[in-house]
Amino acid sequence: MPNPVSADINFRAQSQLGELYAALDSGTGREVQRMLQSLSPQSIAQLLESSPPRIRQVLWNLIDREVEGEVLQELTDDVKAQILSTMDTEEMVAIMEGLNADDVADILQQLPDRLMAEVLSAMSESDRQRVESVLAYGEETAGGLMDTDIVSVRPHLTLDVVLRYLRRHEKLPKSTDNLFVVSRQDKFIGLLPLTRLLTSDPSVTVREIMHTDVEPIPAEMPDHEVAQLFAKYDWITAPVVDASNRLLGRITIDDVVDVIREDADHSLMSLAGLDEEEDTFAPIKRTAPRRAVWLGINLLTALLASWVINLFQGTIDKVVALAVLMPIVASMGGVAGSQTLTVVIRGMALGQIGRSNLRWLLSRELASGALNGILWSAVMGGIAALWFGDLRIALIIIAAMAINLVTAALAGTILPVALRAMRIDPALAGGVALTTVTDVVGFMSFLGLATWYFA
Amino acid sequence: MPNPVSADINFRAQSQLGELYAALDSGTGREVQRMLQSLSPQSIAQLLESSPPRIRQVLWNLIDREVEGEVLQELTDDVKAQILSTMDTEEMVAIMEGLNADDVADILQQLPDRLMAEVLSAMSESDRQRVESVLAYGEETAGGLMDTDIVSVRPHLTLDVVLRYLRRHEKLPKSTDNLFVVSRQDKFIGLLPLTRLLTSDPSVTVREIMHTDVEPIPAEMPDHEVAQLFAKYDWITAPVVDASNRLLGRITIDDVVDVIREDADHSLMSLAGLDEEEDTFAPIKRTAPRRAVWLGINLLTALLASWVINLFQGTIDKVVALAVLMPIVASMGGVAGSQTLTVVIRGMALGQIGRSNLRWLLSRELASGALNGILWSAVMGGIAALWFGDLRIALIIIAAMAINLVTAALAGTILPVALRAMRIDPALAGGVALTTVTDVVGFMSFLGLATWYFA
Repeated sequence: MPNPVSADINFRAQSQLGELYAALDSGTGREVQRMLQSLSPQSIAQLLESSPPRIRQVLWNLIDREVEGEVLQELTDDVKAQILSTMDTEEMVAIMEGLNADDVADILQQLPDRLMAEVLSAMSESDRQRVESVLAYGEETAGGLMDTDIVSVRPHLTLDVVLRYLRRHEKLPKSTDNLFVVSRQDKFIGLLPLTRLLTSDPSVTVREIMHTDVEPIPAEMPDHEVAQLFAKYDWITAPVVDASNRLLGRITIDDVVDVIREDADHSLMSLAGLDEEEDTFAPIKRTAPRRAVWLGINLLTALLASWVINLFQGTIDKVVALAVLMPIVASMGGVAGSQTLTVVIRGMALGQIGRSNLRWLLSRELASGALNGILWSAVMGGIAALWFGDLRIALIIIAAMAINLVTAALAGTILPVALRAMRIDPALAGGVALTTVTDVVGFMSFLGLATWYFA
Repeated sequence: MPNPVSADINFRAQSQLGELYAALDSGTGREVQRMLQSLSPQSIAQLLESSPPRIRQVLWNLIDREVEGEVLQELTDDVKAQILSTMDTEEMVAIMEGLNADDVADILQQLPDRLMAEVLSAMSESDRQRVESVLAYGEETAGGLMDTDIVSVRPHLTLDVVLRYLRRHEKLPKSTDNLFVVSRQDKFIGLLPLTRLLTSDPSVTVREIMHTDVEPIPAEMPDHEVAQLFAKYDWITAPVVDASNRLLGRITIDDVVDVIREDADHSLMSLAGLDEEEDTFAPIKRTAPRRAVWLGINLLTALLASWVINLFQGTIDKVVALAVLMPIVASMGGVAGSQTLTVVIRGMALGQIGRSNLRWLLSRELASGALNGILWSAVMGGIAALWFGDLRIALIIIAAMAINLVTAALAGTILPVALRAMRIDPALAGGVALTTVTDVVGFMSFLGLATWYFA
């Protein structure tokens, strides 16, 4: 289990931040500049991500020109867009020099169309072509993730020739672990791992030792599927091809790690009605409206619950203890339901849940809900009997809680599956839908039983 | 944004599962065996993870002996432990042959101590030593993640000699991207990237082209810090050293990806009182008790809210409309608070939040809470006035909702930070603590104001 309590690295980042702010406060830009120069682009990016918008801009202006591009590519989309919004075309073109095509495409996709066209036309012909080949694919596809900087070889060559060819390179692209074997028409044939190249007899040909049991990734594949393949097969790089099997580029694990993080964040953030790419330090004018929408949706569901309570005004008027206990029934249903919901949503994200095992899952959840329903409704019944000295109220809350916990298990399993079938994101809509059900059923069963009993 | 709706890969996995179950149902074990033989160990592992316990065992028994080890190492800890519990020592030793030391250690750590000792003593001397060097470190440290299968070279050698030395290997360890440069005493000196080796003149020495600006990872570093370093610096492998800088092994990105996934899952699962390693298809005897504890804790907090309501029985008795509206005040506070809480918990997990920026964050959350408080309390006030035709109730709910939304912003920001300072996991305790605050403050302010007003 990760232990978020003793994060030394976070502590180090935080003390860097503290020193930096102290230097900023004392007004010595020089000092801050010196501190920034001693940090890696990755560390600078983290400091920017951890700063409120105004300080972020001040820091950005103090960063050395040469590292700006590297820092920019490390930032999350939201923050990247914020910083880009203050630059002119020339600055942008200057910054993008020396970045990989996929990173440039990532940055360009944050810009309005007009600006993107301007920046592209200001780039050199060859750079533009490479970036455009990435831009041709959506941001969230394999094509959008890929890097076009690859080393390819032909199958008939001997390793000796390949080794001499490589030695003519100043350096190979970062994270190169395989050479790509292609036909004369640039069709993908196989992979030649560098480790294989180094351990084989130089007189054999590429064809004899290349791996051909590799399925290249189609450029249109959604990025989260790419991430699943990388995680499943422990890949470091993978070739990307177009519909006719022509090699377009490669995807490297570092870009995939970002996708994996975002995918994992998606459920957490969506359950609270937030976007997984949301900037922690987004300005209020971005934060407040999005939250407002979510609160509005929840107000509607809360009103529905109130409408149910309103049906039983007469009963509450007679037995006011019901008003005291009714939130307990609703709340326990909500908690039990969100446990089930979380397990199911995660299972779905991992690709584990489908028609063939849903029934088993549902029956386990129902059994678990029933067992816990019996346990905790009995406990609560005892408490109610002692508190209000009224056995009838105790019996009613026992029945209502048991009903609501079983309902919660049912709703927590069925709702996300049904939402997915309706092509609605279960992580986003599941929580709201679930509490609506457990609130309505909770109040309805408790107050309904009371009305019938006390009538 | 990832789109969990159209997951083709998940769909493929699900249809494999469907076919498999159909074959199991028709009772033809041969057929199932043939299907399993056509799948990669990773795909088999996913099928096992997606199956209820009993089917899981049946499938396990149909898997070919030779791939059992590879399949086992792909399973999550919970499932791994389940399957191991049915094996005897001999079977275990057989399975672990051919696995890396870190993977064997991972498996052994799932066993009771006595059994672990038995399996270790049944292994060959050299295998045992390698596994024990990994076991010496905790499961959740760099040492526990590392693999001892590395290729190291000495700095004075020429590349030509290194190339000849490599060619004497049958194959290099998987994901080898660097050779490790060590002194005669095995102290870590630097890295020699394979790409560098391939592009340099064979007559130069290792010392001349090796990278020395690499900080090796201390074996005691917690695994989530290792993951942050890998994600930050885009590493594929990294050297692990002991306290005296002696090279112990290397960590590869594929093991880190698992840590990143678990870390990201931690907040999601903990907020629902679940364990991030929980098996989706855990049997009920494991599921129900854990859920029971969580429900019990929540019952306590719900009782606290009821106790607050109970203080105002008299007022509710007089104005029963209050009972109808009071859940709205509490619920809106809970929703607003959990939005703030989620943003803060994720920011903390990413190492972004500390003393220097907490104040800014708090003021943004308070401003956002106030703005949304004004907006939605006004709307709700209007609805209440129309519904109950009573301006006093409208004014009371406006005030109470505004108070509760600001309280939610305050609690959502302060609580996780305070919990962390007390070394309590904010993801686990934050949600419960928060709804306790928003429930109590919600009911207290609404019913309190009403009591004062109607008295």
